[in-house]
Amino acid sequence: MVATARASIRDVASLAGVSVGTVSNVLNHPDRVSPATRGRVLAAVEKLGFVRNESARQLRAGRSHIVGLVVLDAANPFFTDVAEGAEGLITTAGYSLMLANSGEDPAREARHLELFERIRAEGVLVSPADSQGATLARLRVRGVPVVLVDRGTELTHECAVSVDDVAGGRLAAEHLLNLGHHRLAVVGGPSTLRQVTERRAGAREAVAGHGDGDGRWARLDVVPTKALTIAEGRSAGEMLAAMPADERPTGVFALNDLLALGLLQALTRAGLQVPGDVALVGYDDIAFAAAATIPLSSVRQPRQELGRRAAELLLAEITAPESHEHQHVVFPPELVPRSSTLGS
Amino acid sequence: MVATARASIRDVASLAGVSVGTVSNVLNHPDRVSPATRGRVLAAVEKLGFVRNESARQLRAGRSHIVGLVVLDAANPFFTDVAEGAEGLITTAGYSLMLANSGEDPAREARHLELFERIRAEGVLVSPADSQGATLARLRVRGVPVVLVDRGTELTHECAVSVDDVAGGRLAAEHLLNLGHHRLAVVGGPSTLRQVTERRAGAREAVAGHGDGDGRWARLDVVPTKALTIAEGRSAGEMLAAMPADERPTGVFALNDLLALGLLQALTRAGLQVPGDVALVGYDDIAFAAAATIPLSSVRQPRQELGRRAAELLLAEITAPESHEHQHVVFPPELVPRSSTLGS
Repeated sequence: MVATARASIRDVASLAGVSVGTVSNVLNHPDRVSPATRGRVLAAVEKLGFVRNESARQLRAGRSHIVGLVVLDAANPFFTDVAEGAEGLITTAGYSLMLANSGEDPAREARHLELFERIRAEGVLVSPADSQGATLARLRVRGVPVVLVDRGTELTHECAVSVDDVAGGRLAAEHLLNLGHHRLAVVGGPSTLRQVTERRAGAREAVAGHGDGDGRWARLDVVPTKALTIAEGRSAGEMLAAMPADERPTGVFALNDLLALGLLQALTRAGLQVPGDVALVGYDDIAFAAAATIPLSSVRQPRQELGRRAAELLLAEITAPESHEHQHVVFPPELVPRSSTLGS
Repeated sequence: MVATARASIRDVASLAGVSVGTVSNVLNHPDRVSPATRGRVLAAVEKLGFVRNESARQLRAGRSHIVGLVVLDAANPFFTDVAEGAEGLITTAGYSLMLANSGEDPAREARHLELFERIRAEGVLVSPADSQGATLARLRVRGVPVVLVDRGTELTHECAVSVDDVAGGRLAAEHLLNLGHHRLAVVGGPSTLRQVTERRAGAREAVAGHGDGDGRWARLDVVPTKALTIAEGRSAGEMLAAMPADERPTGVFALNDLLALGLLQALTRAGLQVPGDVALVGYDDIAFAAAATIPLSSVRQPRQELGRRAAELLLAEITAPESHEHQHVVFPPELVPRSSTLGS
C-alpha cells in the first residue's frame, strides 16, 4: 500500500525546468507550447502525480455515472474476460461501463482517453499501449481516477492490478526446459508492450545458465511479431515450419494464447507434430486454449479477478478520493500443462 | 430500399389513442405518465418512425464524434469481429467507437442507450436484446440515427444489416439430414432473441416432412438454454450425454459456436464420439470453430462485413440525414462442413 503524494504546480515546474506559466499553458492551452516542452511537463506531472486542484473535482459534481475501459485488443478473450469481471461490480455500483479498443496503438489510446475525459467519465481503467504513460497524465491532472490493468507500475500515485509477468515467463520456459527442451523460442511482440518485455525477461532468466546435462547450454531465440493475434501466430508458425529440423526450436513459448492458436494451426498444417516436433506453451489460458485442436498448455492469469479488483480500486477512489490509498495488486500466474507440451 | 416516412406528433397521438399533450409528456417528462400509456405511446412512435423535430438535430451541432455500439455479448468473438469491421470505417471517418455490452438483458440495453443519448453519440449501432425495440424509440425521436446489426426488421424507418437466420437454420438442419441423421436437436436460447427464433424456425422447416426412407419421419427436439455461452453449452451437453443412446439425438444444431464448443467439451468428456455418436453443427464460424479439438462445422456469417456495412449506413445517415434512404441489407449464410459432422 502506498500513500497519496500531493505535489504543487511549482514542484512540476521545477522538475520540468520551466516556469509555472508554462505548466499552466500545457494544462490549459497545450497548442501554445512546443511538443518537446509539453512532453517534459507531462512527464513531470506524471512522475509527481500532480492533480490540478480540487475545483476540477467539484466541477465533475454533475455525475456522469460512466466508467471507461480501454483495452489493447477488444477481440482477445483475455480482455473480454477482464471486462466481464469489471462490469459486474461497476454495474452493481450504478455505473455504466463503456469499452474502447486501442488496438495496441498509443495514438488511438490517446484519442479514447481524451474522449472519456470529454464525456466526463468518473474513472478509467486502462491497459496502456503507451509504455511511457504520458497520455494518462492529462486525465490524472483533471482529477479523473485511473487504474492500470494488466500492467504493473513503480509510481506511487496510481493504482495498478497486474499479474507477475516476469514470473509467468519464467514458468513457461522452465516447463519446457524441465521436459528436456534446450532449443527454445519466445514468439511475440511488439516490444512497446510491457507484457511482452516482462514475459520475455522471465523466459530469459529461466534459460540463462541452464545446461542440458550434456555440457550444452539451452538457447532462447526471440521471434518478434507485430501484434499478439492469431494471424501473427500463423505467420510465425509458417516461418518456424520452414526451418531445417535440426535448427528449429523444439520448445516454443507464445506470449499469448491467440499467437499460440495461430502457431498450432500453421505447424500442424505443415505436417509437424505438436508436441513431438514442437512443444507449445501459450499465455492467458483463455477458454479456447483448453478447447483447441491439441489442448494448449498455458500460463493462467486470473482474468475475471483482475477486472474485478481493478474496478474495486477505481470505485473506491471515485467514491472517496481524499482518503483513497493507492495500491499495487500483483497476482501470481500459474502454469496449466496440457497436451501441447505433455502429449496425449 | 425503403423511403423515410415523416410522421407528426398528431399521428402518434391518434395511433396511441391519447392526446397530443400526453405524447409530449412521454417525450419530455416520462415520469408524469403511467408505464402502460408510456409503452403505448413509444410503440406508436416506433411504429411510425416519428422524429421530434429538426431542432433536436440542430441542438446536436456541438459534434461529439462518438458512435455507440451495443452488443448482446461482448465476450462472443462473433460480436468482436462485427465491432472490428465497424471500427475501421468509423475511425477513418474521424469518429470514436464506444462499445457497450447488454449481456442479452433488455434493461441493461436501455441504460446503455440512454447513456449514449446523454453523451450525445451521433449514431448508434445495436444488436437488440429487446425484441420489442421500444427502448430504441426514444433515441430515434431525438434524431439519433440507429442501425440494427444482426437483426432484420419490417420497419421502413430504420436501417438494418443482418444475415438470413431462417436460411442459416435451414442449412444447418439440412446438412445433418443429408448425412442420414433423423433424430435432431436444436440447442439454444433465450427465445426473446430473434436470432434464436429464426434459426429454430429454419431448422423446423428443413425437418418438416423429411422422411428417412424407411417410412419414419425426422424428429427435431428443442433444447432451450438461458444464454448463448460455452457454459450453457456444457450443461446441455451433459444433459444429452445422460440420455439413453437410442433416444439421444444423433445430429445436434447449436445456435452459436460458443454453445457448440461447450457441447463438444461435455460430450467428449462423457466418452461420446463426435461425430460418431453425435454430429455437431455450430453457427457464426468464429475463428475458434476451425481450431477446436474436433474442428467444428458451422454456419458462416460475414462478421466483419456485417459491421462494415452497418457502419457505412450509419455514417451516411449521420452525414446527410435529410437525403438518407433507409436500407435493409440481408446477407446469405454459408455452411462450412468440417470434422464435427464429416469425421476425419
